[in-house]
Amino acid sequence: MSAKSSPTQPRRLKDVNEWHLETDVAVVGFGGAGGCAAIEAADAGSEVTIFEVASAGGGSTAMSSAEIYMGGNGGTRVQRACGFEDSTEDMFTYMMMSAGPQADEEKIRNYCENSLAHFNWLVDLGVPFKDSFHEERAIMCLTDDGLLYTGSEKAWPFAQQAKPSPRGHNLYIEGDNGGPLFMKIVTENVEKRARINVEYDVRVLTLIADEDNCIHGLVIRKDQQELNVRAHQGVILCAGGFVMNEDMLQKYAPKLTHGTEPIGNPGDTGSGILMGMGVGAAAINMHEGFISLPYYPPASITGGILVNDKGQRLINEDVYHARLGNAILNDPGERYYFIVTVEQYGDYEKMNFMGADVVGTGETVEELEQELGLPEGTLQNTVATYNRFAERGEDPLYHKNVQWLEQLEPPLVALDVTPGRGTFWPFFTLGGLDTLPTGEVVRADRSVITGLYAAGRTACGIVRRAEGYSSGMSVGDATFSGRLAGKAAAGRERAS
Amino acid sequence: MSAKSSPTQPRRLKDVNEWHLETDVAVVGFGGAGGCAAIEAADAGSEVTIFEVASAGGGSTAMSSAEIYMGGNGGTRVQRACGFEDSTEDMFTYMMMSAGPQADEEKIRNYCENSLAHFNWLVDLGVPFKDSFHEERAIMCLTDDGLLYTGSEKAWPFAQQAKPSPRGHNLYIEGDNGGPLFMKIVTENVEKRARINVEYDVRVLTLIADEDNCIHGLVIRKDQQELNVRAHQGVILCAGGFVMNEDMLQKYAPKLTHGTEPIGNPGDTGSGILMGMGVGAAAINMHEGFISLPYYPPASITGGILVNDKGQRLINEDVYHARLGNAILNDPGERYYFIVTVEQYGDYEKMNFMGADVVGTGETVEELEQELGLPEGTLQNTVATYNRFAERGEDPLYHKNVQWLEQLEPPLVALDVTPGRGTFWPFFTLGGLDTLPTGEVVRADRSVITGLYAAGRTACGIVRRAEGYSSGMSVGDATFSGRLAGKAAAGRERAS
Repeated sequence: MSAKSSPTQPRRLKDVNEWHLETDVAVVGFGGAGGCAAIEAADAGSEVTIFEVASAGGGSTAMSSAEIYMGGNGGTRVQRACGFEDSTEDMFTYMMMSAGPQADEEKIRNYCENSLAHFNWLVDLGVPFKDSFHEERAIMCLTDDGLLYTGSEKAWPFAQQAKPSPRGHNLYIEGDNGGPLFMKIVTENVEKRARINVEYDVRVLTLIADEDNCIHGLVIRKDQQELNVRAHQGVILCAGGFVMNEDMLQKYAPKLTHGTEPIGNPGDTGSGILMGMGVGAAAINMHEGFISLPYYPPASITGGILVNDKGQRLINEDVYHARLGNAILNDPGERYYFIVTVEQYGDYEKMNFMGADVVGTGETVEELEQELGLPEGTLQNTVATYNRFAERGEDPLYHKNVQWLEQLEPPLVALDVTPGRGTFWPFFTLGGLDTLPTGEVVRADRSVITGLYAAGRTACGIVRRAEGYSSGMSVGDATFSGRLAGKAAAGRERAS
Repeated sequence: MSAKSSPTQPRRLKDVNEWHLETDVAVVGFGGAGGCAAIEAADAGSEVTIFEVASAGGGSTAMSSAEIYMGGNGGTRVQRACGFEDSTEDMFTYMMMSAGPQADEEKIRNYCENSLAHFNWLVDLGVPFKDSFHEERAIMCLTDDGLLYTGSEKAWPFAQQAKPSPRGHNLYIEGDNGGPLFMKIVTENVEKRARINVEYDVRVLTLIADEDNCIHGLVIRKDQQELNVRAHQGVILCAGGFVMNEDMLQKYAPKLTHGTEPIGNPGDTGSGILMGMGVGAAAINMHEGFISLPYYPPASITGGILVNDKGQRLINEDVYHARLGNAILNDPGERYYFIVTVEQYGDYEKMNFMGADVVGTGETVEELEQELGLPEGTLQNTVATYNRFAERGEDPLYHKNVQWLEQLEPPLVALDVTPGRGTFWPFFTLGGLDTLPTGEVVRADRSVITGLYAAGRTACGIVRRAEGYSSGMSVGDATFSGRLAGKAAAGRERAS
């Protein structure tokens, strides 16, 4: 690639001698964010062109379970049918705690207040949700149930601050097939809109900007030719995150280099983020991502304890899997084990995703401690303390919910959950371009880069860290932020 | 400030009708980095102008202890005189471990290999170091000794990988007065060079860039007037970090919001970093900073144990104070205590910096456990385990060096070191513009932004995180990277 076509270096408007294509709104990337952006922009009256590097739409959304995190406002249709009267304040409190100190309060407020409307919009598109509740603690819903707990809502400290409700909405389809179904529906909606044109097999090389960095279009490569595309109303970057870009991961998100399985499509190279940076946009929260140890199913593992190489526990084991995984990565230890009873182990071998090996068994705690090479007395103290309090239905150390508290009676089994020792650590990025709630991309001083919008994982949205992730937040954010960006671009006066 | 004078928005070359000032190399900021950059550029034959917003030079370097981290290469004069034959490989290994997965290996290699030459250059400038070793574990050297351990060199896991040597070089002056003396010497060197002009009380507003973002100069405000400054060879940004910019801290470095005492001068608003971002530079490692609980002196506190609200230890207590502080911030607990014997407590009240209150004393461990409200048995287990191993001269849990291992015999004292409860947490930022080892500022694709250089805390250098900080690394990096940037700019052909 010549220097001129690196995404971090815009083409200058004065160097554009000819416009090869024109559109009102140019959308970069046809995943959940791009598809929803295009639909909203077209429905607001704009001509839209989506540029997708692959030969078909889908993006990383199609590869996901496509759970969608929605609620508040008295509850979605599914929540109400299942008996959950969710409140906007509870949802807001939970999401603010989830996002932590770097939360974008305005965005989260907007997301929560409009979550019911978003649910209805999706239903109107044709997205099906069954009015049924999936009771079991699960990483993803393999039944066609419409609703499940997908985060740490029922766990300390969240449950103490916000009344729990399940907010993970799962598409009405058996198996882990929500993503393909979701993107099939979005694609049908895109295709039936005459105002939307989709260009497949097209690589977007860089933005076209004037010297004030106002955006006028983009440069694409199509059929081996570089073409200048004029976008009269704006460009919406929906090109995913940077999970497939090893250099960027190393530089920006070193924690994610512990991950074993990048979650995303091959186009998640950060090109949208880089294009924004090239015109002076602020990329924020770049160090954070989703990274997880999916230690359930079987749900019964939750009844065990996670210990480090000091035989000490780290966290309440009933949290969301990424929160627990993150706790391991933040801990300075070198080895980590899940200690479970034979009963809790149950069908682990058949059901587990995380790939942890059994590295010890003991007829007594002492025997297991020795087998694991833990310092003498440490695991014995931990189990004795845990059991003494569990008997009373308490966990004063880590506040695991009483439903998961049971005394650990030998024989015990140790699963090695140390990063880098065969366990499965899926990950993706949660940093991206800073945007206003409208989707307008901003500089570090929060001034708007005229004509530039971003959504989905190219932007930095409502979800900011593994420590506070819940399944469905990313697809929820992508579809919601895509819609807002589409509306905002369509509402902009056409540049002459 | 008008939109045009926001640092994130460059002035375009075509909008410059008049050059009010001209120079070869423009240096933004007169701290350690800026001063050393100017000296090197002038000594290489360039005309240099330093623009400083304050009425005098000094920057954050003058406010620091100005310890300088140097060694390797068989040892500096001071190291050798004190009997330490430091090796470049040991220094390199230590610094790579310190910087962690986001280390810039090329920069660290360059720093270590040229560390002896840097020491000699400073001595030639007139910086005095006494050939004496300060034995005591200290946050800063209050005597005039020239050398001390200023990091975690002797602690696990560093000592196991790299032979320890003290590398903190302290200026030959009593008290915590190294910074003012260092900057006095640098200022004298600047002033005696006819090729360097210093403009005080001048605010740099933004860069002047052509449409390819090549840098041609900068816009300053002087005596209420906006002036265009042409820099024929380049602009070197040495404007410090962003510790004084609360918005940026919140957005980029949420961990640092736990800090109580920003370490820096009022000009550390991130303006240099923002100027770089405005022309498409990559700002990296923005989430990291130095943040610390300065729990010694007295050094005897090191013999105690740090526990969380589960009564569990977190780390080997003989590490550098920022590494321990970072461990607290990474731990999900809510309260933290240093548990010490009466003897270890010693002169704590008179000597301590950290401001932790005594919140418990116990004639027995059980009594202290109850007083602190720790779950029954937890602190008792921890102390019993610690003592059992300490008696054997071992710490199999956290590997504290045997020199600090002694049994904790009641009566015991608990100091509350919880963030937010009165303790002192100094902090500053360690993220900044990505640069080549030459100091040339680069985009995310590592292509060079022609004419732009950065050094000191405006750049992201050899030191990347609290977890691996050692005193002297930041001033070491600032002075070294400033010199390189000065040389690189002076070596550039003058733009016509």
